[in-house]
Amino acid sequence: MPELRLNLITREWVIIATERAKRPDDFRQKKDKKYLPERVSDCPFCPGNEGKTPGEIMQLSSDDEWKIRVTPNKFAALNIEGERQRINEGLKHLVTGVGRHEVIIESNLHNTTIALMPQNDVADVISSYKNRFLDIYNDPRIEHVIIFKNHGERSGTTIVHPHSQIVGTPVIPLQVRDRVEETTRYFDNTGECLMCATVRTEFAEGRRIILDSKHFLTFIPYAALSPFHTWIFPKRHMASFGDINDEEITDLAYSLKTVLLKFYNGIENPDYNYVIRSESPKESGSEYFHWYLSIVPRVIQAAGFELGSGMYINTSLPEEIAEFLRRVKV
Amino acid sequence: MPELRLNLITREWVIIATERAKRPDDFRQKKDKKYLPERVSDCPFCPGNEGKTPGEIMQLSSDDEWKIRVTPNKFAALNIEGERQRINEGLKHLVTGVGRHEVIIESNLHNTTIALMPQNDVADVISSYKNRFLDIYNDPRIEHVIIFKNHGERSGTTIVHPHSQIVGTPVIPLQVRDRVEETTRYFDNTGECLMCATVRTEFAEGRRIILDSKHFLTFIPYAALSPFHTWIFPKRHMASFGDINDEEITDLAYSLKTVLLKFYNGIENPDYNYVIRSESPKESGSEYFHWYLSIVPRVIQAAGFELGSGMYINTSLPEEIAEFLRRVKV
Repeated sequence: MPELRLNLITREWVIIATERAKRPDDFRQKKDKKYLPERVSDCPFCPGNEGKTPGEIMQLSSDDEWKIRVTPNKFAALNIEGERQRINEGLKHLVTGVGRHEVIIESNLHNTTIALMPQNDVADVISSYKNRFLDIYNDPRIEHVIIFKNHGERSGTTIVHPHSQIVGTPVIPLQVRDRVEETTRYFDNTGECLMCATVRTEFAEGRRIILDSKHFLTFIPYAALSPFHTWIFPKRHMASFGDINDEEITDLAYSLKTVLLKFYNGIENPDYNYVIRSESPKESGSEYFHWYLSIVPRVIQAAGFELGSGMYINTSLPEEIAEFLRRVKV
Repeated sequence: MPELRLNLITREWVIIATERAKRPDDFRQKKDKKYLPERVSDCPFCPGNEGKTPGEIMQLSSDDEWKIRVTPNKFAALNIEGERQRINEGLKHLVTGVGRHEVIIESNLHNTTIALMPQNDVADVISSYKNRFLDIYNDPRIEHVIIFKNHGERSGTTIVHPHSQIVGTPVIPLQVRDRVEETTRYFDNTGECLMCATVRTEFAEGRRIILDSKHFLTFIPYAALSPFHTWIFPKRHMASFGDINDEEITDLAYSLKTVLLKFYNGIENPDYNYVIRSESPKESGSEYFHWYLSIVPRVIQAAGFELGSGMYINTSLPEEIAEFLRRVKV
């Protein structure tokens, strides 16, 4: 019998289609393996092409070469210049598209990826996220900041060179407000943060855990929206990603790299997106929300049912995926 | 300057990325045109293979051959048999996966599509939707019914033969509840149905209209979530699709076929999903909701930003797309 499982953060149901469920192995990607060189002459993110990206915002370097560069997105969705204005005209509600849209170039190597990078370098990437996250929130026009990564063509990127993006929007997305509202309601009912409770109960049950490190629990959500959907929750209660400390950054680098390497080895480098869902640093003291990192491998395609209902059909069993990933050697 | 536009039904912002915006022409699909025969021997939906689909639920035929067949989905996401049960255990909330999942085979021709079908045949497809929609709601375990179509590989289907699907779920999706809540709130504030108001103001402004038929207005939403996102709204206030009458079915067939043919001719048969968003027939008298059909061509790929924020980046101008489509000959 299929199961509908409730995601308590989004309040949306997921259909776990047990009878259509595939084995974790069946999601192995059948991509042509392309040989990728370390440098590509026309890649805008490769060393030597620094002039192809707009003025650098920050750089991390060692010895003679840069390791990480942050630049404005050349094809920014929002303008850095301008005033945030609200214009209402009948049913048309508009906010001027001011905001920030930056690219974090994660390595000077064209052919690496978080899964294959040394852990220290991943920690540097996460430190850069924190740096830019806090800085962008200083802009008084910015209401919300989203950190995300698109890896591989099916994730929506055409650029192979490893990079993440960070966007500051002049509005709070409804999705974000809704999640905060739900976790607040959970706190009202129980006196506990929903994510803290999730860490506690996932730990006790154990069946969906992939990795348990000192500061983070990495697991398949009970109501995973798709195969290999993974959450990394900090164990310490923190509403805002901006509060992550150095020891936690090192540990998150370990957890993120390890789970992505398990994907890489286990199902052959799947395309994926990941996002950091966080409150603003202004809400840093909130007891209600708790930031986390969510990874969605693009191994199945959402279709009309998902569009029309907001519900997902997951053709895998979260418990089986977790067991499979625990066994993948890294 | 980019614009953030608010979708009043979902309350989500869309970034209209004016500075990255492409011309409507730029979304022309560059697919290899495959020659498709009228019949394919191993297609489960082609005549001669009726035994490959589970027991037929309904059939429409003329002369010696069937024109439309409705069957249970062989790979149903939900089980038709069983009791709807709610099981709560700590943070795990589960409903047994009972429900309906049917396939509407729209033609006995493998190589046709709504855009190319005679209008009368499209009307028959819509009549079948209505028939199944009303019948599935008779099942007391069913809380919500979604009618949708996946056309082309990027829409999430691997089956070429023209078909739609209809799913009855044992829960009301949160997305649906949220939309009803928003339109109810709009009614509270104004005394008018939001969709009736939208038809009125879109008609007055005219810039986003693609097609104006007797009973339907076909237009690009002000806050279209992606290029060529299209809404077809009935002009008569109807909360439930189940109330559509025969004259309206004929007119919807005309509008749907025409706009899909404009896509077909204008940007070379793009992949798309469409869904009918409707209240249950039990809410048929509701003043607050108003059913509509939403078409989302798969011409761009949602990425980490959309996943992480729920907001969309649309790299086209709704007004330009509408103008382009008005001019496409059919």
